[in-house]
Amino acid sequence: MTYCVALRLNAGLVMLSDTRTNAGVDDIAKFRKMFAWNVPGERAFVLMTAGNLAITQSVISLLQERIDTGDSNGNLYSAPNVYRMAELIGDAMREVQERYAPGLRAMNESTLASIVLAGQVQGSDPRLFMIYAAGNFIEATDDTPFFQIGSHKYGKPILDRVIVPETTLNDGITAALLSMDSTLRSDLTVGMPLDLAVLPTDSFEFSIHRRIESDDPSFRALSEAWSMAIRDAFVKMREIPK
Amino acid sequence: MTYCVALRLNAGLVMLSDTRTNAGVDDIAKFRKMFAWNVPGERAFVLMTAGNLAITQSVISLLQERIDTGDSNGNLYSAPNVYRMAELIGDAMREVQERYAPGLRAMNESTLASIVLAGQVQGSDPRLFMIYAAGNFIEATDDTPFFQIGSHKYGKPILDRVIVPETTLNDGITAALLSMDSTLRSDLTVGMPLDLAVLPTDSFEFSIHRRIESDDPSFRALSEAWSMAIRDAFVKMREIPK
Repeated sequence: MTYCVALRLNAGLVMLSDTRTNAGVDDIAKFRKMFAWNVPGERAFVLMTAGNLAITQSVISLLQERIDTGDSNGNLYSAPNVYRMAELIGDAMREVQERYAPGLRAMNESTLASIVLAGQVQGSDPRLFMIYAAGNFIEATDDTPFFQIGSHKYGKPILDRVIVPETTLNDGITAALLSMDSTLRSDLTVGMPLDLAVLPTDSFEFSIHRRIESDDPSFRALSEAWSMAIRDAFVKMREIPK
Repeated sequence: MTYCVALRLNAGLVMLSDTRTNAGVDDIAKFRKMFAWNVPGERAFVLMTAGNLAITQSVISLLQERIDTGDSNGNLYSAPNVYRMAELIGDAMREVQERYAPGLRAMNESTLASIVLAGQVQGSDPRLFMIYAAGNFIEATDDTPFFQIGSHKYGKPILDRVIVPETTLNDGITAALLSMDSTLRSDLTVGMPLDLAVLPTDSFEFSIHRRIESDDPSFRALSEAWSMAIRDAFVKMREIPK
């Protein structure tokens, strides 16, 4: 499984992913699910993937190849805006699905895959998209300023409670990390290390782009402080008659 | 959908269920999912149901009929202990499944159903069981002192954090209500009113057995206090470097 979350805040974009994949619970591996590109001062964007790993890796490889060869078609570096990038990713997804889906279906294997795209291109606002296996996609709005893919339920309550467009980047990072922390505790198919990227609005450069290892002192401090704060909050509930 | 949770604490059993059922999101109804029986001083037990409503209602009806007629076979009132009750419920489940499953499968309808049984009979400890659609069942232990059925993910993190066998009844009630509160917020197919029952160890009588309506002042107070406490806890996380 997988857990990735992306927030589209007024102050910028926050992206967080885990790195665990599994083909059954007895076949666990570590794969990067966050891919970031940056043309400083001009564009910066992140893709996060969930679902069939062969499908999503092929989509990423195709997109990277088209960037590397300077292909004029389907090149994320020449797309004039993030909406056009979402279309190109959808096209690549359809291309890959057409190639492998018949064989996968014949073997009763899932072809499900989804990709979150978050980024900003000079001349337009930061945007956040979710691209489905059929290549169609939706965009985050002020009403729903975050997207999750993979095992999304355990980590949703904290996001529902605190994320609005006005949330600061620091609070957004905290909420994303706590959302991941709840998921890690309850779902063994989601695992450390994590990848975190933060793209402040109009900066066209990541202010944070780092791997968080399982012994990361600041993540551990946050996780422990949150556990204690939840327990303290819980103790306060004793006063309320049931 | 449904959300039911039952805790097996040293101090007693805590059971909480919602009342929403849905056949598609455009066909929502209110059905009781918690059923309680009490022979004061001798036995008290609760069943909570999830899954195919026709199946679970039939199981409950069968069990009630056997109690009413004083049937010597399959009668929950004459079962010598809660383990034997779990067997009888499993038998009733298999009986109903055999009757309806072939027809349901032919129509591609799910026959999935699960029942949580929590209770105590004079002469043995309180016990908590989960009975599956095949009539087989598992029992809660000190390692896993709670069971959830239905939409269980949103409400699991708070239980994972606070529920141990030593948890007091008051804290257990709070945790169950907060677990339900998180689920109600994130899952529209789970809805008020709620049914709450509390059976203190060796009392053989429910200390609480009540319906919590959507305008219930104490549930609202708890929900609001928890929202504020979570926000306060979240604000404290600002001090921790990311």
